[in-house]
Amino acid sequence: MLPRKDLFNLPDRIIYLDGNSLGPKPRAVESRLNQVQKQWQTQLIGGWNTCDWMGQPVRVADKIGRLIGAPEGTLVLGDTLSIKVFQALSAALSLRPERRVILSDSGNFPSDLYMAEGLIAHINPDKDLRVVAPEEILDAIDDTIAVVMLTHVDYRTGRMHDMAAITEKAHHSGAVVIWDLAHSAGAVCVDVMDCNAEFAVGCTYKYLNGGPGAPAFIYVRPDLLPTIYPVLSGWLGHAAPFAFERTYRPAMSIERMRVGTPPVLQIAALDAALDLWEGINMSDIRTASLALSERFIAGVEATCPALKLASPRNAAERGSHVSFAHPEGYAIMQALIAHGVIGDFRAPDILRFGITPLTLDFDDIDRAAQVLAEILSKNLWDNPTYKRKSRVT
Amino acid sequence: MLPRKDLFNLPDRIIYLDGNSLGPKPRAVESRLNQVQKQWQTQLIGGWNTCDWMGQPVRVADKIGRLIGAPEGTLVLGDTLSIKVFQALSAALSLRPERRVILSDSGNFPSDLYMAEGLIAHINPDKDLRVVAPEEILDAIDDTIAVVMLTHVDYRTGRMHDMAAITEKAHHSGAVVIWDLAHSAGAVCVDVMDCNAEFAVGCTYKYLNGGPGAPAFIYVRPDLLPTIYPVLSGWLGHAAPFAFERTYRPAMSIERMRVGTPPVLQIAALDAALDLWEGINMSDIRTASLALSERFIAGVEATCPALKLASPRNAAERGSHVSFAHPEGYAIMQALIAHGVIGDFRAPDILRFGITPLTLDFDDIDRAAQVLAEILSKNLWDNPTYKRKSRVT
Repeated sequence: MLPRKDLFNLPDRIIYLDGNSLGPKPRAVESRLNQVQKQWQTQLIGGWNTCDWMGQPVRVADKIGRLIGAPEGTLVLGDTLSIKVFQALSAALSLRPERRVILSDSGNFPSDLYMAEGLIAHINPDKDLRVVAPEEILDAIDDTIAVVMLTHVDYRTGRMHDMAAITEKAHHSGAVVIWDLAHSAGAVCVDVMDCNAEFAVGCTYKYLNGGPGAPAFIYVRPDLLPTIYPVLSGWLGHAAPFAFERTYRPAMSIERMRVGTPPVLQIAALDAALDLWEGINMSDIRTASLALSERFIAGVEATCPALKLASPRNAAERGSHVSFAHPEGYAIMQALIAHGVIGDFRAPDILRFGITPLTLDFDDIDRAAQVLAEILSKNLWDNPTYKRKSRVT
Repeated sequence: MLPRKDLFNLPDRIIYLDGNSLGPKPRAVESRLNQVQKQWQTQLIGGWNTCDWMGQPVRVADKIGRLIGAPEGTLVLGDTLSIKVFQALSAALSLRPERRVILSDSGNFPSDLYMAEGLIAHINPDKDLRVVAPEEILDAIDDTIAVVMLTHVDYRTGRMHDMAAITEKAHHSGAVVIWDLAHSAGAVCVDVMDCNAEFAVGCTYKYLNGGPGAPAFIYVRPDLLPTIYPVLSGWLGHAAPFAFERTYRPAMSIERMRVGTPPVLQIAALDAALDLWEGINMSDIRTASLALSERFIAGVEATCPALKLASPRNAAERGSHVSFAHPEGYAIMQALIAHGVIGDFRAPDILRFGITPLTLDFDDIDRAAQVLAEILSKNLWDNPTYKRKSRVT
């Protein structure tokens, strides 16, 4: 059943191992963007009603809900992941006002930690952000912890937390849990309801292929919604946005986490991308991801002794990307890209390869390993062109 | 020179007087969206560099800067207007920590007031939101006011504040000023530098025709940037986002006000829409807007005695939309829309007509007034179909 390469506009002669940064373009996006433009052209302002642009953020989010074990009506799309982290964290802290510590780990994506910093500096100066090593998280959870905020899969190494075990320990200690699923949604098996997590957030431009700048999502455990009062209290989170009341009164549904006008064009593109997942089982994705990952690791280790596996060797502790370390990682990655294999580099020394089962097969994996071996064995990376760093890497 | 109807996809037999809610679709959007899709398809993750997606939010914002008197590099695009209001207000309050009052008016858009409410409830419980009538603003400014936060043009009545006079009085009293230009940018003459305002924010889907869900903008007076520490401290506001540092360190430029990943598709559409303004002088837009508005008021008042002008009669005190009040406003507007003239309704009794000089001429205005007169004189609105309210109005 997998992969579904024919459903994507994949460039010729490129092996794309960076779908964990920006997923490739699904073919269906083009007609969907044409459709929404036609709606804009013909329906004008009426599109908010007649084309249900206003309902998109919940309706389209439900297609993600299915992939992460969230029931209908518990997710909403909008804003960016950083904003959704802010919303989740401020709400989570309000649930444990008497506790002082936000616990996270050094494998978390910096923006999540930055948002926590801003929130502490401006809103909760009595709170502390405690950042420990990923392997120390379980032991660090005690009854001083207000919120455990973690990214499920480490953006550099692919190391994957045990979501159920951490959530259980946190709950046992009375803490609230926020999972950032940026590298999980559409990549690994996740069940937010089963593990009873309070909040989950994620982006949609990686494994979900929503396109550059696609909106983020937030999940709130349904029982909590009535108890949280959004800091970012925008009109579309209001119980009656179009009554234009003078005072904020939050919606009783997940729409409470909406803020401003939804990005209709981006959501339309994402909607088309999410339709590709219809009928796909996440356990099949996971099986394919691990088979491809194991093959890549074996291939690289057999032919590139200079590369050191930076991801967990145990497949159960790994998400859907594989990383190797090398002191000249940046130049090696540039050489690799120049030779048609696109991965990316993360400082200081990580070569990162996204394994996206919808668009990759064993031939791609084998070819990528071969090109990498050639670049290393012939020192092709040792070239000033490849060593010059560009602004965005 | 005006209008430029041929540059828009305007539906046949529709007179569109709601460009102040959602601007019609510029023809150039289609090819620009095709272009950015091709970039995504071929450049994949590389598009952030090779197509300067990362630079879009400032580069494209500069095209708006020109229309509101802001120098290059002082505006940035992103998020929604509600989020930008939040950023401006939290930054403004931090500039006057010793003062207690946020002053606004009852003509402000509810979402702006909601964001202030959320900010006070969660961040600044020592502050008060004082909401007075629009005409009382000048008198209400005294040395207790920390921030004057106003929407320049009232979303219901079109009443326009005297931006220079209010800003001057506020500064004289030591207050900081935030102008919401949602109904001003591309509609009336604005000069944020000339009036020395500290902050301005706005949306881009109204007079700027950026499309449904187009991102918002924020202007910060350049001298203030180094002194404000963003509450929403996301990675793209970091001085070195791709260094993935552990601690937030804000950019020294307007990029400090960025938060997360920019909506590349939406910004591309907006970019195409903004190109239509090249070579256009805002004073020509204003002249055309007033001529069209005066003609509409005269036409309606001559033939529809039941409608009461809800906008200021004095053109200098009016933005670029014209409103009339009628107790059956909702049904009248529905009947009008059914007869091909699209305006909108704002509770409790306002019929609102956007005057967009890029897409309207005198024939449109005369025809709209005629249709309105016919609906009123024949009581065509008195029909159950028109009286039933839909969810979004």
